Amino acid sequence: MAFSSLLPRRAHARQASRRPAIDAARLRRRLEQLSTFGRPPGGTFADGVSRVAYSAADLAARAWVLDEVRAAGFTPRLDAAGNIFVRSGGESSRPPILFGSHIDSVPGGGNFDGDLGTLAALDVLEAVRAAGVATRHPLEMVLWAHEESTAFGRGTACSRIVAGDLEAGDLDQVWNGLRRRDAIARVGGDPARIEEAVRPKGAWHAYVELHIEQGGTLDRAKVPIGVVEGIVAIHRYDVVVEGVANHAGTTEMDRRQDALVAAADLVLAVRRIAAGRTGRQVGTVGRLEVAPNSPNVVPGRVVLSVEFRDLSAAVLDDLGASTRAEAARIGRETGTTITMTLASTNPPAPAHAGVQAAIRTAVDRAGLTARDLPSGAGHDAQMVAALCPMGMIFVPSIGGISHSPRELTAWDDCARGAQVLLDTVLALDARASI
Amino acid sequence: MAFSSLLPRRAHARQASRRPAIDAARLRRRLEQLSTFGRPPGGTFADGVSRVAYSAADLAARAWVLDEVRAAGFTPRLDAAGNIFVRSGGESSRPPILFGSHIDSVPGGGNFDGDLGTLAALDVLEAVRAAGVATRHPLEMVLWAHEESTAFGRGTACSRIVAGDLEAGDLDQVWNGLRRRDAIARVGGDPARIEEAVRPKGAWHAYVELHIEQGGTLDRAKVPIGVVEGIVAIHRYDVVVEGVANHAGTTEMDRRQDALVAAADLVLAVRRIAAGRTGRQVGTVGRLEVAPNSPNVVPGRVVLSVEFRDLSAAVLDDLGASTRAEAARIGRETGTTITMTLASTNPPAPAHAGVQAAIRTAVDRAGLTARDLPSGAGHDAQMVAALCPMGMIFVPSIGGISHSPRELTAWDDCARGAQVLLDTVLALDARASI
Repeated sequence: MAFSSLLPRRAHARQASRRPAIDAARLRRRLEQLSTFGRPPGGTFADGVSRVAYSAADLAARAWVLDEVRAAGFTPRLDAAGNIFVRSGGESSRPPILFGSHIDSVPGGGNFDGDLGTLAALDVLEAVRAAGVATRHPLEMVLWAHEESTAFGRGTACSRIVAGDLEAGDLDQVWNGLRRRDAIARVGGDPARIEEAVRPKGAWHAYVELHIEQGGTLDRAKVPIGVVEGIVAIHRYDVVVEGVANHAGTTEMDRRQDALVAAADLVLAVRRIAAGRTGRQVGTVGRLEVAPNSPNVVPGRVVLSVEFRDLSAAVLDDLGASTRAEAARIGRETGTTITMTLASTNPPAPAHAGVQAAIRTAVDRAGLTARDLPSGAGHDAQMVAALCPMGMIFVPSIGGISHSPRELTAWDDCARGAQVLLDTVLALDARASI
Repeated sequence: MAFSSLLPRRAHARQASRRPAIDAARLRRRLEQLSTFGRPPGGTFADGVSRVAYSAADLAARAWVLDEVRAAGFTPRLDAAGNIFVRSGGESSRPPILFGSHIDSVPGGGNFDGDLGTLAALDVLEAVRAAGVATRHPLEMVLWAHEESTAFGRGTACSRIVAGDLEAGDLDQVWNGLRRRDAIARVGGDPARIEEAVRPKGAWHAYVELHIEQGGTLDRAKVPIGVVEGIVAIHRYDVVVEGVANHAGTTEMDRRQDALVAAADLVLAVRRIAAGRTGRQVGTVGRLEVAPNSPNVVPGRVVLSVEFRDLSAAVLDDLGASTRAEAARIGRETGTTITMTLASTNPPAPAHAGVQAAIRTAVDRAGLTARDLPSGAGHDAQMVAALCPMGMIFVPSIGGISHSPRELTAWDDCARGAQVLLDTVLALDARASI
């Protein structure tokens, strides 16, 4: 099925046969195939994927994408950071237009986060070539390695390396017994020449990323396309609560220094602080680990993560300060020591007005409606924004569910989003400067 | 150094050379040797042990104890459950007097919990033989397999099997990929003939267990010996909190069904419920696990343990009911489903008045002081109480710390406790009925 069959009759009639069109059936087939990499044993599409960066599932999925790229007649290229690029057409004197996403997932994630933008990018290359359209700028698909911050943590996405954000020692980080330099080599990167992955400002004409919203705004409003205004900033803290491990039967209640009681108080404080003011900020304790974690031992130590997100860095500073104050109170009340370290920050990244305009042009061309909205999630796009004009296209997440096996986007919405990506790329190609 | 050197001069003079005496230096040496099994790599005595039942460390430590028993000239016997017995002397027509403890530990445990009572029992056998004392009842040391409920859980201590508390299917429980029947075979038991480990009422004349207090009562009062009145009952619940995993950046605070927020509320409720009434009851959440446990995912599921302990089963029922009511409220408020299952119960076990009297006689004989107190911890003694008169001797835990590497008992207190155990055994031997 070609995308044109999904278009309103008027648009369909107007564009006629020369209009490059996404192959919706091919896109769906590829999304379904990709969903088998990292699927729980014995599971189905509905069980989602655990395809953590650098895992066996991630490696197998990357190999499958490379096969699809080659089968489509394109030549993939790996950079030193393990990112995959595929360039097609255009004049070599002009900077390419870049578009794509990632295919790694959180543990227990869904089938659309990243996958859609990556496979839609390949479809865009094929559709443009099939229609015989000669673009002025080369078109370049990208598959970013390690976007989800579940391997080496927030701040280690491989798009960051391309944007030049790499410090001495970063490649010696260890996760699950694996050094980051070895992880990068495992996916075909070249850690010894990592600086070759860094790209200069202006390396691309523009960057566009199609992605599921991951929130429920579009789904609730029944709007098929979101034009992203910008990506929120993220402040993430590592928190260690030190109490005293002791016997759960012999330690009187008033003599305990229970690290989990203190941590529980902090979990509720984070929620109270994030929910207790107007605005769209969110605060989450997503990770919490107890030691020694035995039913008959008063917990002696808890480590946990605290994460705040908002478009304003000043609001984030405020939320962090409130949390530190609560941590100090809880430490005093429970006889525990709570240390809170700002582990990583992502700056806010506004989308470029010119790219937003190109997306709106593409939406109009397809006879669709769109809504402007911020991205509460971090994306590779916020790194690339340092190098060239950036924009993002969102499609609805049913029920706003993401980072979950229940993550779902209608196939028609996937195809609409891919078509808007294609038309945005062509609109950007028509402009000498954005 | 013989124990007699620790005695007040008067007692020493009165008892003269025929009095069987613990060898304090030998006991200390063995405790220090045993502490090397399960010690963290590169650690010292102060780093405690992780010697979980059926682990490699547990197996190696059991083999070492068997070597010590044989080197001392005794013949060990394993029962079908993997418990180790060592019998010495006495008239074969009389039931033996049993004494001993266990050597498995919680993860990150200390060097005295169980170890002291086990190695003191061996010293008692040696001291009685060395003094040439012929007892009427055979003396029997025991090393109970798997006392700490960290392998197959509360209710699977091997002393339970001896007491006849074994149900169909129990041996098919799985922990860490290991079936319980295979675990029992691994330590030399015979799961196919497990019922041969069951012993009848009256199998022993009496049972006495020396153990560290694990609480701080004796240490704070500067009293060297505790005479245990009874062992508290334990009710343990498995709790599952089901929320909805979702993206931490895109899910508005008021649309979350955060399983960890609900669990944190419950942790604080358990503490409030246990601390909020007069009495010596305690309540603990010692284990808590979050899924998917990623900083950027709203937690979808939490499993945790809730444990209450008190001498009164009625009080425990009350505490459980209050917790269920709080769980229902929290579920409503957070949009989560909380299920709470009574996973196991240990009944309270009063110590036998006759054994308590024998312990007080031994304390007087050594010129020491003692205090009556309950045991907040569970012990193998509570299982054996179903078969014969039971009593327990406590020695001080410095700072009341246990189930922790910081668990510590003074060497002199270890020796005093072992001597009281020895003299209690002899006092019980002198009585035809207790």
